[in-house]
Amino acid sequence: MTSSYAGLETLTVAIDDDGIATLTLHRPDALNAFTVTMAHELEQFFLDAARDDTIRAIVVTGAGRAFCAGMDLSAEGNVFGLDEDAAPTPADLRERLTEEPFQSGVRDTGGKVTLAIHACPKPVIAAINGPAVGIGATMTLAMDLRLASTKARIGFVFGRLGIVPEAASTWFLPRIVGIQQALEWVYSAEILTAEQALAGRLVRSVHEPEELLDAAYALARSFVVGRSPVALGLAKQLLYRNAAVPNPLEAHRADSLAMWHTSVGDGKEGVAAFLEKREPEFTGRASELPEIF
Amino acid sequence: MTSSYAGLETLTVAIDDDGIATLTLHRPDALNAFTVTMAHELEQFFLDAARDDTIRAIVVTGAGRAFCAGMDLSAEGNVFGLDEDAAPTPADLRERLTEEPFQSGVRDTGGKVTLAIHACPKPVIAAINGPAVGIGATMTLAMDLRLASTKARIGFVFGRLGIVPEAASTWFLPRIVGIQQALEWVYSAEILTAEQALAGRLVRSVHEPEELLDAAYALARSFVVGRSPVALGLAKQLLYRNAAVPNPLEAHRADSLAMWHTSVGDGKEGVAAFLEKREPEFTGRASELPEIF
Amino acid sequence: MTSSYAGLETLTVAIDDDGIATLTLHRPDALNAFTVTMAHELEQFFLDAARDDTIRAIVVTGAGRAFCAGMDLSAEGNVFGLDEDAAPTPADLRERLTEEPFQSGVRDTGGKVTLAIHACPKPVIAAINGPAVGIGATMTLAMDLRLASTKARIGFVFGRLGIVPEAASTWFLPRIVGIQQALEWVYSAEILTAEQALAGRLVRSVHEPEELLDAAYALARSFVVGRSPVALGLAKQLLYRNAAVPNPLEAHRADSLAMWHTSVGDGKEGVAAFLEKREPEFTGRASELPEIF
Repeated sequence: MTSSYAGLETLTVAIDDDGIATLTLHRPDALNAFTVTMAHELEQFFLDAARDDTIRAIVVTGAGRAFCAGMDLSAEGNVFGLDEDAAPTPADLRERLTEEPFQSGVRDTGGKVTLAIHACPKPVIAAINGPAVGIGATMTLAMDLRLASTKARIGFVFGRLGIVPEAASTWFLPRIVGIQQALEWVYSAEILTAEQALAGRLVRSVHEPEELLDAAYALARSFVVGRSPVALGLAKQLLYRNAAVPNPLEAHRADSLAMWHTSVGDGKEGVAAFLEKREPEFTGRASELPEIF
Repeated sequence: MTSSYAGLETLTVAIDDDGIATLTLHRPDALNAFTVTMAHELEQFFLDAARDDTIRAIVVTGAGRAFCAGMDLSAEGNVFGLDEDAAPTPADLRERLTEEPFQSGVRDTGGKVTLAIHACPKPVIAAINGPAVGIGATMTLAMDLRLASTKARIGFVFGRLGIVPEAASTWFLPRIVGIQQALEWVYSAEILTAEQALAGRLVRSVHEPEELLDAAYALARSFVVGRSPVALGLAKQLLYRNAAVPNPLEAHRADSLAMWHTSVGDGKEGVAAFLEKREPEFTGRASELPEIF
Repeated sequence: MTSSYAGLETLTVAIDDDGIATLTLHRPDALNAFTVTMAHELEQFFLDAARDDTIRAIVVTGAGRAFCAGMDLSAEGNVFGLDEDAAPTPADLRERLTEEPFQSGVRDTGGKVTLAIHACPKPVIAAINGPAVGIGATMTLAMDLRLASTKARIGFVFGRLGIVPEAASTWFLPRIVGIQQALEWVYSAEILTAEQALAGRLVRSVHEPEELLDAAYALARSFVVGRSPVALGLAKQLLYRNAAVPNPLEAHRADSLAMWHTSVGDGKEGVAAFLEKREPEFTGRASELPEIF
């Protein structure tokens, strides 16, 4: 375990010898409920991890019996942390979204976290060990893969609280489970069992509680050992981006650029190792990806 | 049953105490075949329902043994109702699509109906009780969820008739079933059984004929009782829209706006009810959604 | 078998009486490994097939025990065929992508092939008879449907070679299998069995080796006999395009145009045949599709 991620209030971080980081939501007495502090620490962790080449993949889980019970609604006063006098318009956000902090108190807190997860060019795996509700559910959507314990309970409960699904979840959810399933879960606002989440393809697999983390680590290891971090980082960008552009010509343009950059980089070692029937030793760094888009 | 939707030729409308409307395609002697009159009545119903806060969710089914046997091809003369002298160009439609009536006789009739369904900010559930062919199949794609009776038969039969899938169905179908399944069904133009439709994820569930409507009502009720109509109306817009934008930052912008508006609206009651362990009493109206996009 | 596709080095082409072409990757001694010559011949075949009305559907398979073992890495020197001194920027490709040859040696070879497959307005079916690795896997993604033999082995192995998935595969793969499955397969770079590919919905069905081609032909025939090639060609364009535009109004615009053109074309014969209870005899040509987009 490295010490550079020490001193966090709501998270713990451990990194193993293969570069697999375990990020644990750590407010077990409060079922790891989401606070503004946790939001800042999560956002900062993923921004740091993007630049930290000792981290190759990230497994996210919760301490104790929950994954994350959602926003901590027991907070005093303004529970959503938004500026109630703001009355923002679409134009406000369009103009000012890139300023930071912009339009103070209008920007959804969960979205800052999920955009940071999304921008991190490494595989991110959610190991959902227990209840994951509200932002506890939506934050996992920005992670690349979701594994669940049989004790996982997942709920997009926003409609019961009179609010909308946040954290860019309406961008991610239909891409993962299709529009029909996404609409049903958001409309019903029900709590799903692990089996329901599996049948709807929200989680890729379900595990006994004591086997969940090992399964997540095995998967992470298959993404890391003998794989190029540059190739994977670019592939993550290409997959999310090209899934949403209207024309495959744009995808061709982007992957031509990425292919060129990798062909003169890790691709040389990859082909040499293949021809010599040995394991490759890639030297490319995910912290130095070429600009593709 | 309210009387405000009386006097329709091809439809019947009933609204129960929970605000669940049953819209029945009602030309049973003609297997509820689609006519220009039915198109106008359907479009108008969904435009009205969008502004009618007594309607919280809509179940659509067919009278008699069919759901809708498709366009009534037995009509005299010009069966598609299009202006055969028009010869429209892409530029024509691009410039004039928002005029109404624009480019008389060029705009696909079914598409006017499905765009009105899509724009209605309430859950819409298809209860497919029998044959649903051509526009009878494609109109269900703009509905949010599809339940089928074991007697349902669904066919995207356009290729046999020498015409293309219409009613914006090529926008909806791949989002529901994926591109590979969509291509196969459109290319083959075969009639699908309920089981095939379920296996391909076109319908969410299959029911005995006498249990179909109860299942649809139970689902609709789970979307209505104790849920905020504003939160659901905005969520519907967010899910369809954000599923198709290239960048999650745009989704974050939109859900920040929606979150802000609900946080000072039904969200206050939702959180209070949660903390007081009681049922919420939401007062927001779907007829007054803030402009998000 | 027609002779117009004779004289190819790496492919064979046969066309049966129903207009179903069999395109066979034919370097069996090299497991049909992909070369620059094969790329050119594939691209040219699909460009020609788009204009050849004797071809109604295309089945692609491999000679011998493999489908395509990927790029031939045993080539001398610069295995990827890219100009290593080019250092392209996004602006380079954006400006010059439509020039041909543009930015010599920067444009991904596989993408030229998959864009040609995609642009061919006919059903294209992959009959994956054995190993399909690298470009051997990604070229099938641009085909409309994939059938696999029990001996098929499919691998998006790019991450092991230090390169990114190419051939616009990041555009196609998430549309076929969803983003979560796409990320896992690309990150892991593992070789999938036919059953894994089926479970993940990459292939539509799995067959005994000796039954694979018959299954592909039966499917192709269901797309051809009694179907309008114009209706299918336009439907292919509409499905891929509209699956990716943000607003169903754009889809309505496009299908209104396509509907108008088919309603005064093959649609007249289709409706007449339907009313007269006979098989239609369509005369429209896929080589003369109206410009819709």
